[in-house]
Amino acid sequence: MTLPSTVQLVEVGPRDGLQNQKQTIALAAKVQLIDDLADAGHTVIEAGSFVNPKWVPQMADSEQVFTGITRRAGVRYCALTPNLQGFERALAVGAEEVAIFAAASETFSHKNINCSVADSLQRYEKLMDAARQHNIAVRGYVSCVLGCPYEGDVAPMAVAEVTGKLLEMGCYEVSLGDTIGVGSAGGMQRLLSELLARFKPADLAVHCHDTYGQALSNILVALQHGIATVDTSVAGLGGCPYAPGASGNVATEDVVYMLHGMGIETGLDLDKLIAAGSRISATLGRENASAVARARLAYA
Amino acid sequence: MTLPSTVQLVEVGPRDGLQNQKQTIALAAKVQLIDDLADAGHTVIEAGSFVNPKWVPQMADSEQVFTGITRRAGVRYCALTPNLQGFERALAVGAEEVAIFAAASETFSHKNINCSVADSLQRYEKLMDAARQHNIAVRGYVSCVLGCPYEGDVAPMAVAEVTGKLLEMGCYEVSLGDTIGVGSAGGMQRLLSELLARFKPADLAVHCHDTYGQALSNILVALQHGIATVDTSVAGLGGCPYAPGASGNVATEDVVYMLHGMGIETGLDLDKLIAAGSRISATLGRENASAVARARLAYA
Repeated sequence: MTLPSTVQLVEVGPRDGLQNQKQTIALAAKVQLIDDLADAGHTVIEAGSFVNPKWVPQMADSEQVFTGITRRAGVRYCALTPNLQGFERALAVGAEEVAIFAAASETFSHKNINCSVADSLQRYEKLMDAARQHNIAVRGYVSCVLGCPYEGDVAPMAVAEVTGKLLEMGCYEVSLGDTIGVGSAGGMQRLLSELLARFKPADLAVHCHDTYGQALSNILVALQHGIATVDTSVAGLGGCPYAPGASGNVATEDVVYMLHGMGIETGLDLDKLIAAGSRISATLGRENASAVARARLAYA
Repeated sequence: MTLPSTVQLVEVGPRDGLQNQKQTIALAAKVQLIDDLADAGHTVIEAGSFVNPKWVPQMADSEQVFTGITRRAGVRYCALTPNLQGFERALAVGAEEVAIFAAASETFSHKNINCSVADSLQRYEKLMDAARQHNIAVRGYVSCVLGCPYEGDVAPMAVAEVTGKLLEMGCYEVSLGDTIGVGSAGGMQRLLSELLARFKPADLAVHCHDTYGQALSNILVALQHGIATVDTSVAGLGGCPYAPGASGNVATEDVVYMLHGMGIETGLDLDKLIAAGSRISATLGRENASAVARARLAYA
């Protein structure tokens, strides 16, 4: 067991989280959430998405979000960008980092963005050129790394292939998404054995969903493999579009509780995170999906 | 990582689970639950408790439960017994195994059973003699192994001490209970490092509560230390009396999902477990606390 001494959390609640909440969220609440998260110590926050609002109406106000937040020194505010137009919109509002995405499953790629995995990667070429030109870091997301809602099992080799291409294209890091949360510790172990034969731990991040309650144990396996970047969502914001009613992103608070209990530094203030998650949960009128937050509030 | 190839689950839902549910449960529903669990493949089921019904009214009908269930070959039906009278009641209804309990925290012991840890152990002497005489296996529970609601942190050395005494007294196994679910992977690692310097993995079981969402990652750490007996509760039956509204026992389904995903055998049929957990949850009018069950039912 070689555990990292520090873990970088990537807070995806304001984007991946809110995008998968059914409720419409006022601009002011999004801005407040992002400012609360920065105040709690987050240094990487996915703040919005510059995709076609026809497809993702929840993110239609990302420009206003980026101009509404109070930018803090030392915090990278990131945006999901599907193409050059999205990149240019993100650039215009001063996003420090953008993210592109591809699937490890052909069927998912076709159903989600109507093209093959290879075509989806090719479509990013202009975006990558523009990012290089403007010195903007690009993160890669791979979805369905531990299972696909259409294909079921996904071969670690397929994940390795698309991960390798994203890194070759210039992504500084690839986040491995268990999009539907079906992975368990065994699958994560097999996946990372394959990937770490080709890539360094520093090239990789994990993005675990808690749909089957497995996120923390999967993250623990990743930490034990030296991976030191973990995507999380405050209050477990989000859900699983493929299993309505089931939970989605792993809660930041629960991951931070585990990491701090292991003596791993995150730079985050758990109490402030719980407060931020409680505030947005109340605004949305949803139950807080962080077990740590629920337990702390129940004890209080 | 030396993982066990087979894990013995101890199903505690009918006792530890139902005891901590607020709802009153009809005898027939308890009997049905236990028969469902045996049908799903459980071979060790904690079926009741022979304590004073004044203190634990939920378990007042344990005699009727034991006589009402359909006994299956190869299944051990166990009972919690606080003293010789409880043991004799358990013996009279044919319990194959009994369990005694002690705390790793002095304050918890005083508040819970009004005596010191040492006194609580001494009180079991007659019970242990009777068990030996009747050739009944006795399991030991230690509570608060990763934290106490009154004292906070609990020293691994204190857990080791009471564990050692229970084993010396004749318990065939000691189940380490994270009674309030505050433990995380780091704490479990430190605890087991201490215990496994003195005891064999086969002497130990883990009993994790999911109050802070940490149960699966804690169990994973225990498996990595060679521990191959895990207490679980179908549908996450139970709660945390010290944090009303927070969750309690880890759900059997979620643990089985993880174990099977790791290629570890349990002898359990996950679909039947989910059906058993859904049935008792519906009877109680409570939300199923198993993430796996919720996800499976949402997908269906």
